[in-house]
Amino acid sequence: MKKIVLRDDEMPRQWYNVVPDIPNGLRPPLDPVSHKPISPDKLGAIFPQGLIEQEMSQERFIPIPEEVLEIYSIWRPSPLVRANKLEQALGTKAKIYFKNESVSPIGSHKGNSAVPQAFFNKREGIKRLTTETGAGQWGAALSFATSKFDMACKVYMVRVSYDQKPYRKFMMQTYGGEVVASPSADTKIGREILARTPDTPGALGMAISEALEDAFAHADTNYSLGSVLNHVVLHQSIVGLEAKKQMEIAGDYPDVIIGCCGGGSNFAGLIVPYVPDYLEGKKIRFVGCEPASCPSLTSGKLAYDTGDVAMMTPLLCMYTLGHDFVPPGMHAGGLRYHGMAPIVSALAREGIVTPMALHQLECFEAGVLFARTEGIIPAPESTHAIRGAIIEAMKDPKEPKTILFNLSGTGVIDLPSYDQYLQGNLQDYSYPQQDIDESLAKLPNIP
Amino acid sequence: MKKIVLRDDEMPRQWYNVVPDIPNGLRPPLDPVSHKPISPDKLGAIFPQGLIEQEMSQERFIPIPEEVLEIYSIWRPSPLVRANKLEQALGTKAKIYFKNESVSPIGSHKGNSAVPQAFFNKREGIKRLTTETGAGQWGAALSFATSKFDMACKVYMVRVSYDQKPYRKFMMQTYGGEVVASPSADTKIGREILARTPDTPGALGMAISEALEDAFAHADTNYSLGSVLNHVVLHQSIVGLEAKKQMEIAGDYPDVIIGCCGGGSNFAGLIVPYVPDYLEGKKIRFVGCEPASCPSLTSGKLAYDTGDVAMMTPLLCMYTLGHDFVPPGMHAGGLRYHGMAPIVSALAREGIVTPMALHQLECFEAGVLFARTEGIIPAPESTHAIRGAIIEAMKDPKEPKTILFNLSGTGVIDLPSYDQYLQGNLQDYSYPQQDIDESLAKLPNIP
Repeated sequence: MKKIVLRDDEMPRQWYNVVPDIPNGLRPPLDPVSHKPISPDKLGAIFPQGLIEQEMSQERFIPIPEEVLEIYSIWRPSPLVRANKLEQALGTKAKIYFKNESVSPIGSHKGNSAVPQAFFNKREGIKRLTTETGAGQWGAALSFATSKFDMACKVYMVRVSYDQKPYRKFMMQTYGGEVVASPSADTKIGREILARTPDTPGALGMAISEALEDAFAHADTNYSLGSVLNHVVLHQSIVGLEAKKQMEIAGDYPDVIIGCCGGGSNFAGLIVPYVPDYLEGKKIRFVGCEPASCPSLTSGKLAYDTGDVAMMTPLLCMYTLGHDFVPPGMHAGGLRYHGMAPIVSALAREGIVTPMALHQLECFEAGVLFARTEGIIPAPESTHAIRGAIIEAMKDPKEPKTILFNLSGTGVIDLPSYDQYLQGNLQDYSYPQQDIDESLAKLPNIP
Repeated sequence: MKKIVLRDDEMPRQWYNVVPDIPNGLRPPLDPVSHKPISPDKLGAIFPQGLIEQEMSQERFIPIPEEVLEIYSIWRPSPLVRANKLEQALGTKAKIYFKNESVSPIGSHKGNSAVPQAFFNKREGIKRLTTETGAGQWGAALSFATSKFDMACKVYMVRVSYDQKPYRKFMMQTYGGEVVASPSADTKIGREILARTPDTPGALGMAISEALEDAFAHADTNYSLGSVLNHVVLHQSIVGLEAKKQMEIAGDYPDVIIGCCGGGSNFAGLIVPYVPDYLEGKKIRFVGCEPASCPSLTSGKLAYDTGDVAMMTPLLCMYTLGHDFVPPGMHAGGLRYHGMAPIVSALAREGIVTPMALHQLECFEAGVLFARTEGIIPAPESTHAIRGAIIEAMKDPKEPKTILFNLSGTGVIDLPSYDQYLQGNLQDYSYPQQDIDESLAKLPNIP
């Protein structure tokens, strides 16, 4: 069979939390001022209790609320697909499967965490969420999720994306979200930045600071983050839990599992349910594909760093390029992040996750091949996973290896970037290690 | 359950041909010059034998080739969904189901016919297909389908859409299709039009003429049409065949079935498998929702007319507004067609299909409500079916009626039109019957 589908009643009813299974564990998040482990109370100013508990939890299985399952069922369980047309085009003996997260109405895996984040906030009386967004995938997901719980949503969207990528802005507005270009006149910090640099294109770090200020300033408002944090990885585990069931139905077991890595959530979501098998001695490799232009796992340092430029977030122990590292503009905007989820970072530290840095031209080439064989135009982010899968399949084309990757999103809204690629207007970027070392030298000195 | 999914091996393996079941039958297509029934031989210049046989067939069930089933399985069987969040928002006792054709990688039902059209051409040695496209849905579907069979595809895209709707052009190119703005310098008729009117925005009628000239001029090339014809309706019957199975699993039977109507193919595809039940006495209504600005079923005339402005196509017996009727620019571009599929027209003639003409503002309003309740942003075309379903549900909100409609496509590529709607920049259009009568007075006089 080309495609393995599960019925609604076969959807997993618990998320899987990998934290208690990570050898040598996770290091705690630290207060950005005192450098002491941050107290759950302090997080309570911007996050609901339900999510803070998940963030800190040592439980392996956490039930998915009925209300979340019902909204998940708009697009979940998502299909597992055998990429046999791609295999034929490659002439490989490897079997390639992909988990198709592109089928969600917002076009990516981001809804898997947006829905429970909206739910747990709603349950604790929160009426409004703020967030930042770059290219707009996460802002669209949160606008979608809040519309389902009759909550308001305000998205601070990096100005350059706001101006250049209007489709995702329109999507957020259609779902009822309020979108402003960041920096905006709506916050103190936004006004300060605008006064200093009225023509700034904006940056994710500025948008995070605005969304945080807004959430701190309103009692009925919380803040929401779409990647990196433990509770986001927990929610994304639904991807891997379904895939594992579907691979069993297919009668196959993956030798290698691949995902693209920006903040790490779609990759982690697919691999974590397989980590216990690995720890029990199963031979399985986990390959995280990141852009060569923003290679936190490949060229960064495992250290405490903040999530934003303004250093307002807790310090997280993660592979990082330094919070003021500025990657070049590139079409896989969702992979342009300086740090990697603490969970993925710890798995890389233990040698369980292997990174692979890829250039954008080879990824777009893989994306076009995938579109013309498997029929789906992948998000520029997801083309990194496809290129990784092709590299693994072609290492020894005669070896009957089984590969599973995450097709994290559709590229339909990113079609202008395919046009740029097909017209030969794109180029590759990478950073000399020296530039990265300079950025890393500015990190807070925490042993 | 929110959603009824079928597994790949539960997909119907035969299409259903309603033609032999239509009371009083269909009238034959006529040669545009002699006004005599057209011979299959003449159609052979631009269509493959396999499709001509389907066009003329009196068989009720026609097997779907394995190669077509395999490509269908990229997105088929498509889900049947209970719109319970929409029902709640309306406060209706009616049960509303929709067949979700928006999940295909090209975003609409058009692939259901593009794939078999490419297959039957390929089987007869054809290496290249030409077609016209307005907004680009059909051109994208055919580019997708030809890429699966290693065929070339040339799409003549109406210039105004080519310039204003670049995303679908990019989609066709990513699938490997060649796209030119029509009128183009690539055909004799295109050059003639450009010489006369260099600044013309183009029209579907011109693009059809160019695609036909191209197909006539090349021995390895055939022409392909995305709606109206009997074989297109046949291919779209997969939608209704799946839906009927899924409604049985849901334990429900529709009292009313609704679709949007441009050329008629998505509506016909959903309803035809239910027509035999109707003929056996089952109480069921079939409602075709068309735009008030292009109301062929509501305000047109059942007559022989051509499919294009240049009068190159066979004459078809259909409800028409006249082949030179020019509807206003509107966002549901897929519904801007002067005629209606002969099959739908014959069912309307027999009183089996009831038309409903709707204005675009009420349709966009329904589309936004649907996005915020059911989570999916519908194509502007599909919002007509949603508005129709809401009108049916609200006739008597306490009546426990069962409604089924076709969500023919996603609106993700049409998001700028939602932006226009939300900003209050759209308006309604309709034609006085007098203007329509003037256009109809120019039809060929065939009894």
